[in-house]
Amino acid sequence: MRFFDHNATTSQLPEATAAWLEAGELYWLNPSSPYRAGAAAHAQINGARARLAALLDVEPGRIVFNSGATEGNNAVFAAWARDFCTGARIAVAATEHPSVIESAAHYFEGGIDWLKPSGDGVVCPEGVNLSDVSAVSVMAANNETGILNPWQDWAKVCHKRGILMHCDASQWIGKMPLAGIGACDYVTACAHKFGGPKGIGFSLMPEGARGGLLGGAQEGGRRAGTEDVPGILAMVAALEAAEPGRAELRDKFIAALQEAFAEVEIVGAGSPALWNTASVILPDFKSARWIRALEKRDFLVSAGSACSTGKGGPSHVLAAMGVDAEKASRVLRISSGWQTSEEDWDALLAALIESHRELLDEAADSNSQVISI
Amino acid sequence: MRFFDHNATTSQLPEATAAWLEAGELYWLNPSSPYRAGAAAHAQINGARARLAALLDVEPGRIVFNSGATEGNNAVFAAWARDFCTGARIAVAATEHPSVIESAAHYFEGGIDWLKPSGDGVVCPEGVNLSDVSAVSVMAANNETGILNPWQDWAKVCHKRGILMHCDASQWIGKMPLAGIGACDYVTACAHKFGGPKGIGFSLMPEGARGGLLGGAQEGGRRAGTEDVPGILAMVAALEAAEPGRAELRDKFIAALQEAFAEVEIVGAGSPALWNTASVILPDFKSARWIRALEKRDFLVSAGSACSTGKGGPSHVLAAMGVDAEKASRVLRISSGWQTSEEDWDALLAALIESHRELLDEAADSNSQVISI
Repeated sequence: MRFFDHNATTSQLPEATAAWLEAGELYWLNPSSPYRAGAAAHAQINGARARLAALLDVEPGRIVFNSGATEGNNAVFAAWARDFCTGARIAVAATEHPSVIESAAHYFEGGIDWLKPSGDGVVCPEGVNLSDVSAVSVMAANNETGILNPWQDWAKVCHKRGILMHCDASQWIGKMPLAGIGACDYVTACAHKFGGPKGIGFSLMPEGARGGLLGGAQEGGRRAGTEDVPGILAMVAALEAAEPGRAELRDKFIAALQEAFAEVEIVGAGSPALWNTASVILPDFKSARWIRALEKRDFLVSAGSACSTGKGGPSHVLAAMGVDAEKASRVLRISSGWQTSEEDWDALLAALIESHRELLDEAADSNSQVISI
Repeated sequence: MRFFDHNATTSQLPEATAAWLEAGELYWLNPSSPYRAGAAAHAQINGARARLAALLDVEPGRIVFNSGATEGNNAVFAAWARDFCTGARIAVAATEHPSVIESAAHYFEGGIDWLKPSGDGVVCPEGVNLSDVSAVSVMAANNETGILNPWQDWAKVCHKRGILMHCDASQWIGKMPLAGIGACDYVTACAHKFGGPKGIGFSLMPEGARGGLLGGAQEGGRRAGTEDVPGILAMVAALEAAEPGRAELRDKFIAALQEAFAEVEIVGAGSPALWNTASVILPDFKSARWIRALEKRDFLVSAGSACSTGKGGPSHVLAAMGVDAEKASRVLRISSGWQTSEEDWDALLAALIESHRELLDEAADSNSQVISI
């Protein structure tokens, strides 16, 4: 199986599995227990927090461990709803993950300025009127298209205005340089996007933030619940092991794809994007048929966010970019991993060409059957 | 190390570790992915759901997988806050876990009838006026004392009145018979109390319930976020492997303890309780000193809920039962596991007797030092 859907999830790195197993043996006690052995489990959390803080170059006290980015994103808007005055407005990028969009809508219904992307998919602060808003939420890298937003600029603009900024960095962290991400007041991330286990993640939040799970003093009162020490240690081990990737192989694939299919279009071509992601509009057939044809050849690709599978309807990300629904129905999201080789990319291109031929043949057969009836 | 704090957490069962590792190898894909291999991961969740439903004797559609009981308890009150009219009242046992008490207070501030336990710690429906409330939350087994509430009776009373019932069964599930628990409309549980991993749990919720994490169609729209397939499979494997325990060894220990220490008092003596828990008021010294003296002898016991460690102040559970603060400061929570042997219990008694002697000697030394100054 050649896996080209790393934006949906990743397989667990051996470093993460080893850390999880070791912690399950040595540090399985409840870290809030009153005996010294419990304190040893707690010390492991703080050790992991310090290592993560060093990777991110932030104060350890800003880090909150949780169950993943969906929980993290929900908690941001819950926190803002508690802290802001009634009637406060927020600005949210229209291309955000559903866990941002739905949380924002739940807590700030009617109080949201949606930030539209340019036609090439980037959400920029230039020309945006922020005078009425108390906070901004702009993701670092889009999960469907890989397109990067200038979160560094957003953080500057927000700080200058004295308003808060949240950055969903789920697709950024583990793939891109971590330096500077602490400039955002709130950051969300999850481990399974970078080789850590499912069910564990972290956020950056101010020390006094509230909005997370209630019912215990864990994580400085910001997230109650028995800490998942093995998950935390596995996540940090994975992030330490994650290697930066390079865009050359993906770029070469895109060039070859455009040569093979004259009609192909690249979503957000020319925009800065993650090194691993290609969002492509293929000719003639719906995404689902391409996905099936490729899976028969042992390639896994997807059409958009895994979280929105089953919801149906066109992608809100592509719609916000002005991609029409018919074209959006032919999009593939191709997202490579750290281990993806040039040969994998070449094989994917060959499989796309083969799949196209097969799909055309099937269509011709089905047309001739219709005629013969 | 002899571990007598199983109500705080448990070590992971080999069956759970094996299931987690296998799922990490075979079913690490995102279960919401659009290809067949993703559907195979999704089928594992539904397989686990069916196995858990069989254990609990409930419809599989009532089960929601989440990150644990703290999340589950938070979601119940969020759901009720969404569903009930403004001004609705709820009834909540005063002895609940902080994740119930704080969530209830957050969503129903000023709208809560606190259900007081009897002096022996049981929260019974007899004589309670429920005419003003829309729902009731009563835990199955108390985490600090092990005392059981008649949740079966509560479920009957609530259904007769047409109001909803929530039961935090975190300490019940894995220790006590599962039959009938589905009579409660909402049930919360977490894996690490019965040999499963940290960071995974489940709830029973009605099919249309809302109140969990927003932003994806997972778990029937009741809990967004990429599913933790390894965690889910490990949790169900642990619950299938969990054996019912017997109270005889604990009862024999209590009898011997009362013989060794004339002044010892048993919290909730005479009340139905978990087979594994003894909540005892020891003579002469504060809990923390007993805990340290026992840990020196390689016994781990605690004073109360791990979640409330560091919060300070006397236990709200003991206060609700009318135990005065001075006595409450001398309480130990002793909670055995499935593997705890008669020899372990005997050794614990010997360690308590030794610890008492040591603490008395220390006190005598310190008194004589005071005199000599």
